[in-house]
Amino acid sequence: MHCQKCEKKASIHLQQHRMALCKEHFLEWLLNQTENSIKKFHLFTKGERILVAVSGGKDSLSLWDILWQLGYCVDGIYIDLGIDARIGYSQKSRLLAEQFASERKLKLKVVDVKAAYSENIPEMTERTQRGQSKPCSVCGLVKRYIMNKSALEEGYAVLATAHNLDDEAAILLMNTLNWSMDLIRRQLPLLPERPGFVRKVKPFYRTYEREAAAYALLSGIRYIYEECPYSKGSTQLYHKRILNQIEDRQPSVKLDFYLGYLRANENRMFALKADDKENIHEYYCANCGQLTNRGDLCSFCNLTSGQKL
Amino acid sequence: MHCQKCEKKASIHLQQHRMALCKEHFLEWLLNQTENSIKKFHLFTKGERILVAVSGGKDSLSLWDILWQLGYCVDGIYIDLGIDARIGYSQKSRLLAEQFASERKLKLKVVDVKAAYSENIPEMTERTQRGQSKPCSVCGLVKRYIMNKSALEEGYAVLATAHNLDDEAAILLMNTLNWSMDLIRRQLPLLPERPGFVRKVKPFYRTYEREAAAYALLSGIRYIYEECPYSKGSTQLYHKRILNQIEDRQPSVKLDFYLGYLRANENRMFALKADDKENIHEYYCANCGQLTNRGDLCSFCNLTSGQKL
Repeated sequence: MHCQKCEKKASIHLQQHRMALCKEHFLEWLLNQTENSIKKFHLFTKGERILVAVSGGKDSLSLWDILWQLGYCVDGIYIDLGIDARIGYSQKSRLLAEQFASERKLKLKVVDVKAAYSENIPEMTERTQRGQSKPCSVCGLVKRYIMNKSALEEGYAVLATAHNLDDEAAILLMNTLNWSMDLIRRQLPLLPERPGFVRKVKPFYRTYEREAAAYALLSGIRYIYEECPYSKGSTQLYHKRILNQIEDRQPSVKLDFYLGYLRANENRMFALKADDKENIHEYYCANCGQLTNRGDLCSFCNLTSGQKL
Repeated sequence: MHCQKCEKKASIHLQQHRMALCKEHFLEWLLNQTENSIKKFHLFTKGERILVAVSGGKDSLSLWDILWQLGYCVDGIYIDLGIDARIGYSQKSRLLAEQFASERKLKLKVVDVKAAYSENIPEMTERTQRGQSKPCSVCGLVKRYIMNKSALEEGYAVLATAHNLDDEAAILLMNTLNWSMDLIRRQLPLLPERPGFVRKVKPFYRTYEREAAAYALLSGIRYIYEECPYSKGSTQLYHKRILNQIEDRQPSVKLDFYLGYLRANENRMFALKADDKENIHEYYCANCGQLTNRGDLCSFCNLTSGQKL
C-alpha cells in the first residue's frame, strides 16, 4: 500500500480514516490533527504555560513531543507512585520520562509520592479500604490532587493529560451504560478553570491509542511498554476491549461515538434543565485550603493524614 | 439451588435479579412483572381490544399467552412473509402460531403477503435494491404497514409487539453509538396513537430474552426455535452478542441500560429543545391514504406498486 500523499510505501494504514501514510506524512498528519483539536475547543494558546502530565507511556510522551514540536510552551510533571509490582514499573517509567526530557532539554518536575507524603500508592491502598485493595481509586485521587496543586502553585495556565480516544470512548461507554448523567456531562476535552482548580484539557481526545503508539515508535520515542500492573482486569480495560471488537466490524465507531457525544453536548442535550439542581457544596479543606465538596478535610488530606476512607 | 418463594428445587436462576425460582413461581413472577410493566407506562387497560403481533417464536407466543392469562382482550395477527430458506421458516412458524391459537380458542388473523400483494418478501427484496439484497429492511417496512393497517381497520385500540429487553438494549446501544437522537427519542415502550397510526406498545420491554424462552419452555408452548434465516449476521444480533458479553461480567447491565434510558427520558434529557425543529412533513399517500413523510406514494405503496426503491 502506498502513502496517500507522496506515493512512498505506507507505514501505517488508518482504517478509521480510510487513509494510508508513510512515516513522514503520518507524523505531520498527527501534528496537524492535534493542532486542529486544540483550536476546535480553544484548549490553550501559544502564549500560555502548559503543564503536561507524563507517565512514561506512549500517550503522554507522544503528546509532550507533539506540543513541543508545535511550538507550545510546555513543561512536564511526572508523579512517582512507588509501584514496583516485580517489574520496577515506577522506576522504569520515571527513567524514560527523565531521558525524554533531558534529550530535548525540556523541564520535568518530579513529585515522589512517598517522599512527599510518607507512603507510596500500594502502601496507602493497603492502609485504607478505598478501592477494595485495588489501588486505582487511591492512585487517581492522589494524581489528580498533585497535578492540580503543582499546576496552580507554579502558575501554569493549563494542565494537559494524554487521555486518548480509546480512553474517552471506553469511559463514555461505561457512563452511558449506567446513564451517569453527571459524569457524562463532564467528559469534555476542556474543563474550564474555577477557583482552586486549574483548567484541564485533553488534546488527544480524537487520537486513537494506536495512532499515539505509532507516533512514539516512528519518531523513536522510548516509552514503557507495560501498562500499570494494577490496571489488569479493570472495567475500563474491559470496555476498551469491547469497543475494539465493535471497531473491528465497524471502523471509526469510537470516533463517531465520542464526536457524536460532543455534538449532542453542543446541542445542550445533557445540559441541566432550569429546574434541575447540581449538587455542589463548597467547603475549604481545613488542612490544605483546597475547595472540596465535603466539610473538614478534603479526600486527599483525609487519605494522607492516616484516616481510613 | 432452591426456589426463593417455596423451597422447592429451583427451575431457573435469574442472576440479573439475584433470584432463583421453581417453575410455578417463575411463571407467576413473569405474569406479575408483565402486569407491572403494563401499568407503569399505562400501555393499555382491560377494557381495550389489543392486537398482538405473532411470529411463532418464543417471545410473541409467550407474550400472547401472558396477556391472555392476565385477562386482557387480545387477538393475534400473523404475517406470512413467504420465507422458506430451505427450512420452511414461514410455513413452520405459521403452523405453530395457528396451533397455539386454536388450542386456546383465540382469534388469529393471518395475512399472506404474497396473496395480498403478489410477491413474498424474498421476491420483493430481489426486485428492489432496498437493503442491498438483505430482506430485513423490506420485511420491516411491510410488517409495520400491515400490522398498523390491520389494527386500524379492525378497530383495535393498540398493537402490541413482543420486543424484549435484549432487543431494546441492543437497538439502544446501536443508536447510542451513533447518537441518533431521533431514534433514541422514540425507543419507548409506548408510542401514542396519532392520525393514521395505532398506539404501539412493548409490554416485554423489561423481560430478558432468556426469561421469555424459559416461560415458553416451562409452560409447554411449542414455538419455532430457528431465528429468521435472514437475520444471520445482522447488526442487531451483533450488538446483542456484545451486550451478552458485558452482561456476563456485569449482570443486569441490559436492564440498567434500558431502564436508565427511560429515567433519563422521563427527566426530559432527550426532549427537543424549544428552538429545535422536528422534521415532520405530513402528506397523504395517493394510493392508500396513509400519512407519510414523503409526497405522492408512501414507502409501502412505492414498494408494492413495483417501483425500485
